[in-house]
Amino acid sequence: MYRTHNCGELRIEHVGQEVTLSGWVQRSRDKGFMMWTDLRDRYGVTQLLFNQEKSSPELFESARTLGREFVVRVTGTVIERVSKNDKMPTGDIEIEVTSLDILNAAKTPPFTIEDDSDGGEELRMKYRYLDIRRNPVKEKLIFRSNLAIEVRKYLSHQGFIEVETPVLIKSTPEGARDFVVPSRMNEGQFYALPQSPQTFKQILMVSGMDKYFQIVKCFRDEDLRADRQPEFTQIDCEMSFVTQEEILNTFEGLTKSLFKSTLDIELPDFPRMQYDDAMRLYGIDKPDLRFGMEFTELNDVAQNKGFSVFDNAELVVGICAEGIADSYSNKDIKKLTEWVQRPQIGAKGLVYVKVGKDGTFKSSVGKFFDDAALATWVEKMNAKEGDLLLILSGETDKTRKQLGELRLEMGRRLGLMKEGDFKPLWVVDFPLLEWDEDSERFHAMHHPFTAPKKADVERMLNGDHETMKSLRADAYDLVINGSEIGGGSIRIHDRELQSKNFELLGFTPEEAEDQFGFLLGAFEYGAPPHGGIAFGFDRLCAVMNGQSSIRDYIAFPKNNQGRDMMIDAPSHIAPEQLEELHIDLAQKEAEV
Amino acid sequence: MYRTHNCGELRIEHVGQEVTLSGWVQRSRDKGFMMWTDLRDRYGVTQLLFNQEKSSPELFESARTLGREFVVRVTGTVIERVSKNDKMPTGDIEIEVTSLDILNAAKTPPFTIEDDSDGGEELRMKYRYLDIRRNPVKEKLIFRSNLAIEVRKYLSHQGFIEVETPVLIKSTPEGARDFVVPSRMNEGQFYALPQSPQTFKQILMVSGMDKYFQIVKCFRDEDLRADRQPEFTQIDCEMSFVTQEEILNTFEGLTKSLFKSTLDIELPDFPRMQYDDAMRLYGIDKPDLRFGMEFTELNDVAQNKGFSVFDNAELVVGICAEGIADSYSNKDIKKLTEWVQRPQIGAKGLVYVKVGKDGTFKSSVGKFFDDAALATWVEKMNAKEGDLLLILSGETDKTRKQLGELRLEMGRRLGLMKEGDFKPLWVVDFPLLEWDEDSERFHAMHHPFTAPKKADVERMLNGDHETMKSLRADAYDLVINGSEIGGGSIRIHDRELQSKNFELLGFTPEEAEDQFGFLLGAFEYGAPPHGGIAFGFDRLCAVMNGQSSIRDYIAFPKNNQGRDMMIDAPSHIAPEQLEELHIDLAQKEAEV
Repeated sequence: MYRTHNCGELRIEHVGQEVTLSGWVQRSRDKGFMMWTDLRDRYGVTQLLFNQEKSSPELFESARTLGREFVVRVTGTVIERVSKNDKMPTGDIEIEVTSLDILNAAKTPPFTIEDDSDGGEELRMKYRYLDIRRNPVKEKLIFRSNLAIEVRKYLSHQGFIEVETPVLIKSTPEGARDFVVPSRMNEGQFYALPQSPQTFKQILMVSGMDKYFQIVKCFRDEDLRADRQPEFTQIDCEMSFVTQEEILNTFEGLTKSLFKSTLDIELPDFPRMQYDDAMRLYGIDKPDLRFGMEFTELNDVAQNKGFSVFDNAELVVGICAEGIADSYSNKDIKKLTEWVQRPQIGAKGLVYVKVGKDGTFKSSVGKFFDDAALATWVEKMNAKEGDLLLILSGETDKTRKQLGELRLEMGRRLGLMKEGDFKPLWVVDFPLLEWDEDSERFHAMHHPFTAPKKADVERMLNGDHETMKSLRADAYDLVINGSEIGGGSIRIHDRELQSKNFELLGFTPEEAEDQFGFLLGAFEYGAPPHGGIAFGFDRLCAVMNGQSSIRDYIAFPKNNQGRDMMIDAPSHIAPEQLEELHIDLAQKEAEV
Repeated sequence: MYRTHNCGELRIEHVGQEVTLSGWVQRSRDKGFMMWTDLRDRYGVTQLLFNQEKSSPELFESARTLGREFVVRVTGTVIERVSKNDKMPTGDIEIEVTSLDILNAAKTPPFTIEDDSDGGEELRMKYRYLDIRRNPVKEKLIFRSNLAIEVRKYLSHQGFIEVETPVLIKSTPEGARDFVVPSRMNEGQFYALPQSPQTFKQILMVSGMDKYFQIVKCFRDEDLRADRQPEFTQIDCEMSFVTQEEILNTFEGLTKSLFKSTLDIELPDFPRMQYDDAMRLYGIDKPDLRFGMEFTELNDVAQNKGFSVFDNAELVVGICAEGIADSYSNKDIKKLTEWVQRPQIGAKGLVYVKVGKDGTFKSSVGKFFDDAALATWVEKMNAKEGDLLLILSGETDKTRKQLGELRLEMGRRLGLMKEGDFKPLWVVDFPLLEWDEDSERFHAMHHPFTAPKKADVERMLNGDHETMKSLRADAYDLVINGSEIGGGSIRIHDRELQSKNFELLGFTPEEAEDQFGFLLGAFEYGAPPHGGIAFGFDRLCAVMNGQSSIRDYIAFPKNNQGRDMMIDAPSHIAPEQLEELHIDLAQKEAEV
């Protein structure tokens, strides 16, 4: 037997017992005739005492050979510590070791196995098995496991059935790029890995499954960044015979329950915001509500006063940063102006107004607007003495986006995004379609299966091109602290309407039939009204812990080149494998 | 709102309430002035009553248009039925309908949506969404979901952490064929889909995760048959600092708990059988213990009596089929002989002995053996009057396999594999290596990471070629009713021993390093002793329900050509996709 107890459970009441523990050597302190070693496993750390006087010389010498991360088994007696450590749950006791087995030696790890490691990200990814030994990483993975348990518990209690949908499915050009899998048995044909189980969960609704969920891996062959991975996990859900309201209530209930059970946080009811309001007030469809700083549109008070930049703008809009007029120097404002002018933001300039005492103002546009004019802005923005107004202008959508970025930046700079503060929000009534100027075609704002609002169905079936831009959908996102945690919609369940939507999205009838014929067919055999939602599980883990990167919540993440640094994948495969799969590597273009 | 109740929950105590239900039309009976319609959803069936006298003519006419599988919403009053149906949970009541909405019409389904459908398998797979509406299929998927919940509940309570391992990994030629995924970002390279998360779970043990599990999709590009699918699901588990005994106890506990919680069956403690005994007594490593009919070896009593077939055989071995001597005619035995002579079984012939009254026998080898000689066989086999002895002879391994097949066939014919009878069994002490005469190399009996028994380590490191054939492993299978439900082993956790095993399996050091260098490396940084097991989840579902095929426990299975008949995958992909992935379709050989 390797252990009678783990390294986290011995307490003062175990004193006198003989125990066996196994684990990793965290560190040793050698005081000549006494040696203390911290033994670590998943559950904690227990101090071992090697006492030269009480043990055999062989045991003591063997203990001296122990290096960091050696794996050992010890047997000994639990004794009360002379100097207790109240920071460790096992800090009242130590083990006077009478027997020591070195189960495995260890080379010195390439970085320290401590909460704050000295290893860079690349090194830690290559030696991920050492990285996971560190408490912060290990605890993130345990959190994830616990969260999944709570998700399943809640949804099962609500009558949801977890159904596994296939991983080897069919490639569809719509949406992001597919990963594909050549078929050996079907020459020249390919499976695709699912970007989501969307069509399958709808098929399950047609099959009468009524309430479906799945915690499921999804795949997108996109260019990567910190919060994107080629494989990621969704909490995927679908319900039949439901309205949007019932879906929102169900998953608001899930979210509250998860926060309560894993973080002991009681979330209040989630506010709901129209997509249009989110864009108008925050310039983004996933506003961070941990702070206010809502947009105020100033067209009526700032235009036609002779400042051509504003006069020529479609929108003049500002935010009010409270109480920083004095502390923000001209240099600070210059830097902020440069910040919004960076290509990633793309604003042409930044107008500011500092609200001084007794109705006096300092502004970059003081020569165009006198204090009385500026006072109307200040009043409109509900600003008060000491506040700093930041104003952008230009084309409506772009300016909103830019000011949205600036608002978030000010929130960060002013420390308004407090850790442990959670502000969930439903954003609802998204547009059905999005017109892409570049490709001159409609994209589905959510996905091609999203239903227009009932009131818009007639307009969708019979309206003209411009009408399509104004269609609204029963589509909704769950946003927490500025992160999109989940999104979903009521789906189309009618063949005619689905065909119309495919047509609007640029599918020929043949393409629609080829890719989604099974779904269109299913709609003819008694499809119920249905809708659903999918949560980004990796991101939910991160957001619940105030983290911005999802990587540490994934046991074996890939880097930005899509590589697994530990196993060194992807890799070359044997020519025989290619042959069996009926594919060749593409010949490189001849060098010119 | 689509419903106040589902179609399975209304009872006599709801009489008088106004309710709204939604569901599918199962069938209607039109009696002219009254019409009854069964409305079905996942939860049950409720009878609707359309009464011409009490409802509007429009409502009644609308009800008359309802076809099978139409999706409707009705509102009405719960009334007590005149003629109750005690076979339906809702059979005491019906709904007097006052309002009817046809939510979706339905074409006539291509097969009947009844427990016994008239649809063939191909048709049911193509219209899987209709097939799943049938109770037997729906209930299998719900059983699967419930079983997964119970697995997670049990293992979580035991301290196991569910960790998601990657799906995009590295191709390794060992084992079955990999599915591969061309990498767009890494030209000429491929990911592979995991045949199991084996190396990752071992890495998790090196990372100190201590107890890991995952219900996880695995992939094998093998030729398919009824109980194999290209993608299948495992309950994958691994533990650190454990002996084989502790693993067996843990997963015996899991299995008992699953039978108890989902089937309300209390399994007794599982017997354990050495691999060698299983082969010797049942001719197979997964004996069905629902019936006895153990092998008796007859070399000492049947050889050297002048019957050259036996004399030249390495093994003479028989089974005793009780009480069928009289009912099995010469014709029956001829048919049985033909059965064992089929190429799939491959026996040369079948010797029988019928045990008659007063020490008389009837046998196909009567002219070589007198009654006294046959009496020694009968005694050895513990046979009694009326029994039929069936005896095969030849090369040991082949003959055991043939008799194993015959034993199962007799079990089937005699109805000895009773439904609802569960006989679990641990088969232990598998050989480490298997010598393949054809390729003249060793294969890993379990997999290349399995450890030899401690007592065999020295012989493995220093023994000769013949010694390797006799090495035993701490490897075990869980068998229920002749199906292998799970299998696992204690793993190697030492770099030297793992390298030796790779060498025995024919890897060059470079190949071992290229494919498994990360694992060999991990073993140098403090790998704990560890071991684990994986259960075939699909098969567990099937076996627990006495089914032989796993297909109906998979929501969207593939056919024997690896095709999803519903979505019609795999399929051709666009030339641009191939180009982005840096691959071409192989040119077909020029026709001669």
